[in-house]
Amino acid sequence: MGRPVPTRVAVLGAGSWGTTFAKVLADSSKEVAVRLWARREEVTLEINGSHRNSRYLGDVVLPGNITASSDVSAVLADAQLVVLAVPAQTLRPQLAGWKALIPDGAVVVSLMKGLEVGTDARMSEVIAAELSLPADRVAVVSGPNLAMEIARQEPTASVVACSDHDVAAWIAAACTASYFRPYTTTDVVGVEIGGIVKNVIALAVGICEGRRMGDNTKASVITRGLAETTRLAVALGARAETLAGLAGMGDLIATCSSALSRNHTAGHLLGQGLTLEQVTVRMNQTAEGIKSAQAVLDLATQLGVDMPITDNVVAVLQGSISVNDLGPRLLARDLKPEGEHTS
Amino acid sequence: MGRPVPTRVAVLGAGSWGTTFAKVLADSSKEVAVRLWARREEVTLEINGSHRNSRYLGDVVLPGNITASSDVSAVLADAQLVVLAVPAQTLRPQLAGWKALIPDGAVVVSLMKGLEVGTDARMSEVIAAELSLPADRVAVVSGPNLAMEIARQEPTASVVACSDHDVAAWIAAACTASYFRPYTTTDVVGVEIGGIVKNVIALAVGICEGRRMGDNTKASVITRGLAETTRLAVALGARAETLAGLAGMGDLIATCSSALSRNHTAGHLLGQGLTLEQVTVRMNQTAEGIKSAQAVLDLATQLGVDMPITDNVVAVLQGSISVNDLGPRLLARDLKPEGEHTS
Repeated sequence: MGRPVPTRVAVLGAGSWGTTFAKVLADSSKEVAVRLWARREEVTLEINGSHRNSRYLGDVVLPGNITASSDVSAVLADAQLVVLAVPAQTLRPQLAGWKALIPDGAVVVSLMKGLEVGTDARMSEVIAAELSLPADRVAVVSGPNLAMEIARQEPTASVVACSDHDVAAWIAAACTASYFRPYTTTDVVGVEIGGIVKNVIALAVGICEGRRMGDNTKASVITRGLAETTRLAVALGARAETLAGLAGMGDLIATCSSALSRNHTAGHLLGQGLTLEQVTVRMNQTAEGIKSAQAVLDLATQLGVDMPITDNVVAVLQGSISVNDLGPRLLARDLKPEGEHTS
Repeated sequence: MGRPVPTRVAVLGAGSWGTTFAKVLADSSKEVAVRLWARREEVTLEINGSHRNSRYLGDVVLPGNITASSDVSAVLADAQLVVLAVPAQTLRPQLAGWKALIPDGAVVVSLMKGLEVGTDARMSEVIAAELSLPADRVAVVSGPNLAMEIARQEPTASVVACSDHDVAAWIAAACTASYFRPYTTTDVVGVEIGGIVKNVIALAVGICEGRRMGDNTKASVITRGLAETTRLAVALGARAETLAGLAGMGDLIATCSSALSRNHTAGHLLGQGLTLEQVTVRMNQTAEGIKSAQAVLDLATQLGVDMPITDNVVAVLQGSISVNDLGPRLLARDLKPEGEHTS
């Protein structure tokens, strides 16, 4: 569409991913002004004063073209691109308060990975509904993107999804840095479902690790986990190739390999025998997969999609099976052709 | 086909995987006699005397229905199932010597992962050609199967492939243990290509780790590595789903996660700056991926399949690019739709 790269970008949410993505946008061009909204005043003071967000990103120095504010109307004023990075379960009420402030014509990008509890809605659906936006003004960025590695400028690829390919390419141009390579797709559903379900599969893998099961088991759970994720995504209209790409397989493997993943860590602690309450206290927050698992299962049930790993993770979270039973249940199936074990 | 489960099985090759698979077969049924051929007398003495193969499997105790011999004709006599687990590059000359000893009607199973240097032939092709066997008497077993974990009886799934599904099911029944779950498929090519190329991708991942690149990069290389593996396999007539399954994605993830993998370790040492000669000396052997990489690239070139990761690994092995250049080369591509970056 030939639209010039945006020069005024708003990022709402100054956690580890929101702040890191603000850095990517700011590193993409010296011409862009990136305004970052943080709820807490001390975070804005630190970002503006010493170019750091030490709670989330340690010593990483942020570019000078990022400024922070706790005044959301100042952050959103004149923004051509609005990036949302708030907790998935609080998005809808926050959007209601922001709706009037989002400039006409701005494109809204979701960095969030979760299904809304109660409605089973994806974040792009919540955004489109609450802001009354058409599909070509809502996009999603997802991939094998552990924030801390990107903040350290370790090379990473990612995927920008929008139903309008030109809009996806426009966003990709705005978030291309020497260490960050975005690819583009029109498959919003596939990219979102990949990011959502991987948190549930990461819980399963973490539990297996906590039970001291080996790399063979872990690889099998990841492989079958992607298979059930793909089944759900395809039932929702996604393309299977998307799940085989960076936002599906890539994100799942990065999360399940990393000690930096909250969902993976939460699973590990569950596998070691901690209760759900103990895990939440220990981690000082609830991992998103714990919140989304039931919503994923509900969606699968409505669509008639078999998701045995998700089903078993929900059973562990509800306390109806023990972590000791999870691994054997995931492997105990009759001998049959591989493609058919899933139906 | 209702053929009774075999009671006389020969396993040729007493390395870690051959010995471990002999244990799986023996644990599958107390009725089966598993005879294991080892080149060296001291190995047969240890297996028969103390039920151990300590060089490869440490303290693991082997079942009493495994007996070892260095006399290949005694091992093969009357065998209904013959399992081959010798180094890929020595298979053809060894088969020439064994051909007359393989009983009429026996089914031959390959556990080997490699392409023959010079001919670019898969192991099942070498077996069929050298032994003049029809396709329904040659099978392959592959999956996320780190031998040491299976020897310790940690739960694992695997895939048995034969063009005749009944034969695959017959073999699966013969190698089902409480800790080992075989699935079946008729896609022999897909299962073999998955096992071969994953060694090359594991070298690339190991090199990235040796250069201290993060989990995002590693996950991207694994994801794109499976994509190029799938392209090659499909060009050879395989089904894409096979590569998305345990013998493709599962095996690749297990290998790239594990410190037990020789190919992964060899890549790691290369990434740390050792020369190919130093790596071979340090490991006391050449990793199969180092031997097969050029053959994989030759095959891809003949078929017009783009395999950028394999291409770059070959360039590193030949010394034409440095390990420092590998990571940036794997990520440095123009912005484009994800599915198209590969063509």
